[in-house]
Amino acid sequence: MAMRGVLRPGEIQIRVMDMKKARHHYDHILGLHEVMEDSEGRVYFKAWDEHDHHSIVLAPSDRAGMDHFAFKVYDDATLDVLEKKLIAFGIPVSHIAAGVHPKSGRRLSFVIPSGHTMHLYADKEQIGNTLPHSNPGVVPDDGVVRGANICRLDHMLLGGINLDECVKLFTEVFDFDLSEKLVHHEAGISLAVFLTCSIKPHDIAFLLQPEPNRFHHASFALESAHDVIKAADRFGKYRVPIDVGPNRHGITRGATIYFFDPSGNRNEVFAEGYIHYPDTPLLTWDTTQAGPAQFSQDNTPRDSFLQVLT
Amino acid sequence: MAMRGVLRPGEIQIRVMDMKKARHHYDHILGLHEVMEDSEGRVYFKAWDEHDHHSIVLAPSDRAGMDHFAFKVYDDATLDVLEKKLIAFGIPVSHIAAGVHPKSGRRLSFVIPSGHTMHLYADKEQIGNTLPHSNPGVVPDDGVVRGANICRLDHMLLGGINLDECVKLFTEVFDFDLSEKLVHHEAGISLAVFLTCSIKPHDIAFLLQPEPNRFHHASFALESAHDVIKAADRFGKYRVPIDVGPNRHGITRGATIYFFDPSGNRNEVFAEGYIHYPDTPLLTWDTTQAGPAQFSQDNTPRDSFLQVLT
Amino acid sequence: MAMRGVLRPGEIQIRVMDMKKARHHYDHILGLHEVMEDSEGRVYFKAWDEHDHHSIVLAPSDRAGMDHFAFKVYDDATLDVLEKKLIAFGIPVSHIAAGVHPKSGRRLSFVIPSGHTMHLYADKEQIGNTLPHSNPGVVPDDGVVRGANICRLDHMLLGGINLDECVKLFTEVFDFDLSEKLVHHEAGISLAVFLTCSIKPHDIAFLLQPEPNRFHHASFALESAHDVIKAADRFGKYRVPIDVGPNRHGITRGATIYFFDPSGNRNEVFAEGYIHYPDTPLLTWDTTQAGPAQFSQDNTPRDSFLQVLT
Amino acid sequence: MAMRGVLRPGEIQIRVMDMKKARHHYDHILGLHEVMEDSEGRVYFKAWDEHDHHSIVLAPSDRAGMDHFAFKVYDDATLDVLEKKLIAFGIPVSHIAAGVHPKSGRRLSFVIPSGHTMHLYADKEQIGNTLPHSNPGVVPDDGVVRGANICRLDHMLLGGINLDECVKLFTEVFDFDLSEKLVHHEAGISLAVFLTCSIKPHDIAFLLQPEPNRFHHASFALESAHDVIKAADRFGKYRVPIDVGPNRHGITRGATIYFFDPSGNRNEVFAEGYIHYPDTPLLTWDTTQAGPAQFSQDNTPRDSFLQVLT
Repeated sequence: MAMRGVLRPGEIQIRVMDMKKARHHYDHILGLHEVMEDSEGRVYFKAWDEHDHHSIVLAPSDRAGMDHFAFKVYDDATLDVLEKKLIAFGIPVSHIAAGVHPKSGRRLSFVIPSGHTMHLYADKEQIGNTLPHSNPGVVPDDGVVRGANICRLDHMLLGGINLDECVKLFTEVFDFDLSEKLVHHEAGISLAVFLTCSIKPHDIAFLLQPEPNRFHHASFALESAHDVIKAADRFGKYRVPIDVGPNRHGITRGATIYFFDPSGNRNEVFAEGYIHYPDTPLLTWDTTQAGPAQFSQDNTPRDSFLQVLT
Repeated sequence: MAMRGVLRPGEIQIRVMDMKKARHHYDHILGLHEVMEDSEGRVYFKAWDEHDHHSIVLAPSDRAGMDHFAFKVYDDATLDVLEKKLIAFGIPVSHIAAGVHPKSGRRLSFVIPSGHTMHLYADKEQIGNTLPHSNPGVVPDDGVVRGANICRLDHMLLGGINLDECVKLFTEVFDFDLSEKLVHHEAGISLAVFLTCSIKPHDIAFLLQPEPNRFHHASFALESAHDVIKAADRFGKYRVPIDVGPNRHGITRGATIYFFDPSGNRNEVFAEGYIHYPDTPLLTWDTTQAGPAQFSQDNTPRDSFLQVLT
Repeated sequence: MAMRGVLRPGEIQIRVMDMKKARHHYDHILGLHEVMEDSEGRVYFKAWDEHDHHSIVLAPSDRAGMDHFAFKVYDDATLDVLEKKLIAFGIPVSHIAAGVHPKSGRRLSFVIPSGHTMHLYADKEQIGNTLPHSNPGVVPDDGVVRGANICRLDHMLLGGINLDECVKLFTEVFDFDLSEKLVHHEAGISLAVFLTCSIKPHDIAFLLQPEPNRFHHASFALESAHDVIKAADRFGKYRVPIDVGPNRHGITRGATIYFFDPSGNRNEVFAEGYIHYPDTPLLTWDTTQAGPAQFSQDNTPRDSFLQVLT
Repeated sequence: MAMRGVLRPGEIQIRVMDMKKARHHYDHILGLHEVMEDSEGRVYFKAWDEHDHHSIVLAPSDRAGMDHFAFKVYDDATLDVLEKKLIAFGIPVSHIAAGVHPKSGRRLSFVIPSGHTMHLYADKEQIGNTLPHSNPGVVPDDGVVRGANICRLDHMLLGGINLDECVKLFTEVFDFDLSEKLVHHEAGISLAVFLTCSIKPHDIAFLLQPEPNRFHHASFALESAHDVIKAADRFGKYRVPIDVGPNRHGITRGATIYFFDPSGNRNEVFAEGYIHYPDTPLLTWDTTQAGPAQFSQDNTPRDSFLQVLT
């Protein structure tokens, strides 16, 4: 059956310390489209091929990191179902009225076991991808696809505590599937878990950290590995600080570049990766293969992967 | 929520008139992997990145075409649910016992309004994609990815009657979403409809034909548009009869080559295409734009698209 | 030794019947850069990665076709040498003073055996590719690489008479090498000849025609076959009339799209192709393989290839 | 004029300490074709799209490095011309008779100012690229293009002394052009120089080192940046030690991976890069931009680039 229930990562609110530099990064270099600024100075962006009003919110702050992330759900009734399941799971839920978040319907807000604030919403104003619904064609007008040619917000990797509880929450309450995990080869504990609510290899992932509510990266989808190379050329031109890449993840098989925004928040561009179905076997990597799991083209684990979060 | 209910096109049985030539085409040129031959001379193939035992069955016959297609569902209980829904919809359902189709659990079999025989099954023996489940890496051994580098069976396009009834069946009984349609610009009737049970732009499609139960094509997924070019080079070398392409569909935005197997059955290799969510607007093309809808790189409709079926 | 003598196709002057439409085609769709308009209404363009002032000249006219083409030579002394060789070959040479062609040094002008007017020049004002000569980086500023991402004028294919004489002229006087030829399988005569003055598979080619001085196409270099796909998407969006492609030539192995400008002059975008050295064997195709020679991905010869010229 | 004089890097003899491992690396992983083994245990390889008998020679040794490199010249008469020019330049030349190097005509051998032994030869037995000369088609049979899909030996980077003398030798005696150089931003001396005898951005390069006759890398041409990604995937699978990449050089604009053979000799796969003509401006990088000059996608200079040689 087509996607129902929780649909996709629909929004992430990232704290930035210099909005001018942040705009240059997200708008000009990445090529996201700024769609509005609110009265508190938050700036809203969308990727060209998303239909909803925005998916990225930059919030002015004196420290980097993520304020919240949000998944869009199928319909308003789904919110009621999920609220009951959350409460049954033992997670208190608060309500955010429609309009509190611009262009957005009512939301459920709650803190997940890793320490992050998560929202669920069913409605957000749609402004489209510039192609008409009737005889759309396939290529937007000049200037719509620009910068690094980002199509969509793809997923986020969050650092925190209680990974097993997070897996339990996402699989039991939100009906995600666990696609891959990285475990300590002796202790056996999960160091990273990858969860999907679609046929993508992941829609969200968690990385074990000593403290809750850390932000590892927001990932933006590109159309092809070829566009990953072109993005790398562009990031080089603009002297974007590169963490790792271009490379290919072992986990997810995705082509990747990790890089940082001017506040030190990690971003990723991501392409390819395999198709995951519920009957696709769970893939387990252990720390003897931490290199290949992280970066399969040089099999070299990076300390920054585990240690640099905002 | 992750995929549930009807998961994906899991099998297609195609009639071929010369098995030796068919094997050369599907195994050597396309690079599918032959996994078995049954006592009735049917030959079974899988694409490398599928986990199930097979997805393509070639049946010896004196005429080309498709015998049946099958979707895999989430679990056995889903079969019971769908059987009830099918009967309520007015479609008689027959049972095929486990093992009648090799490596396959029990099946529901029925004829859909377009005239085609469809199966549903929840179980098929898994033989994997050659990568282990523990520390799998990303690249199979030499010889696994070969030929045209096909990853998976992607979708099928079927020609037949009663398109509106097919849409009703797939959306109401199987919970697919209608992603795109091509309508006659004056008569307003649907000439082609595209349905998805995932976030792919289509998992199955129907093309209006004067008679029921015609076969337009089976489509095989490639990793990238770059692999589509490489496939075109390979098809050229082996003098595969090309119908159209390389080109890009307007509908689905997929990079494509249409070509024929030695019996005249149309195949497709397909890559890219947009991501479809339930809140993605339905895209409607009309026959004033039949060219761009079919082949957006030259906007030229092909008669063969509507007229050559098996 | 590095390139000496005749260096490259440096200029082509194409007649267009509607300059407004032509500008839209060459500037906006193809992404060439307009650099000047002269007092006679001729409009001059360059591709982004060329250093010389221009390589494409559009001349207003009431009929399509090519006025002249020009090769740049290594230095002024080369012009003297070549003038003597031309005269010895039996070709009268006229002199065009510096400045007659804008930004250009003195030229030799003559008619080659196929009936086309050819120029040789050693000097043209350089305006660069926008990257500095000191610490240039690799990526131009936004807006420099645009449209179909054309890098350079690559080659031209001319239709005319006396192909053997043309080969003799280009190999003996200009020291080109013959890389490939297409011959009639019974008559043995050359129908098309491909000549290189570099390590590209061709810098100029000739196609046998019943009358002299016909223009088949001007070809523009793209960086990769991937950019050829992107160009095809763009041409589709702008409804550029496509002749053939995307496809791959058998001759030269180049990825190609043939298409027409608004006056009916054929253009090509071209990428890849093999490296040719003087000891690379001459490749000969015959008319039993006209399809694979022309378009190797579908092995289908196109009548337009031989018959549509301007 | 087409290539004359010195044509291309035609041979490199690399010392390896374990021939079994070396064979696995160059033959199986890289996909070069072993063509013979001589009586002294040297093993000869060619890339698929080269026509000459071999271009890579592996010599068993107890230390890594390069024994000699060789350029092929246009014809035997060129050898005589170059011998005179070499002697006039002050470089003693010794003669190697035809057949001393298998399948090879007579050679000139001499030591260039950087301390490396260089050969020139005009003849080597041609065994072709498997495609016939008559109606060749464009795609070799299965198994010919394999491994990392290397087309040709592209260039070599040599570490040594007397860079200015090397430039003088290659430009004045061999008629190469200097395409790019990296200079110390204060001292002004050349740290690296890049020279071309074709329209490639380099056919050979030199890196300043405190001692003569060091080997930096041999570079193998791939067809596209896409193949560079695929090569990186393959190198990851086989745990090839990666030095840097995938990345893009600032100098030459080439897509690159640096990696090591089992003896510690550096290899490169290389694709793209700009076209160089004699009138292309010399590009100069200084050490304030050593990062962008080396690796333009992350602007990060690697110590290994300057320090790890064999």
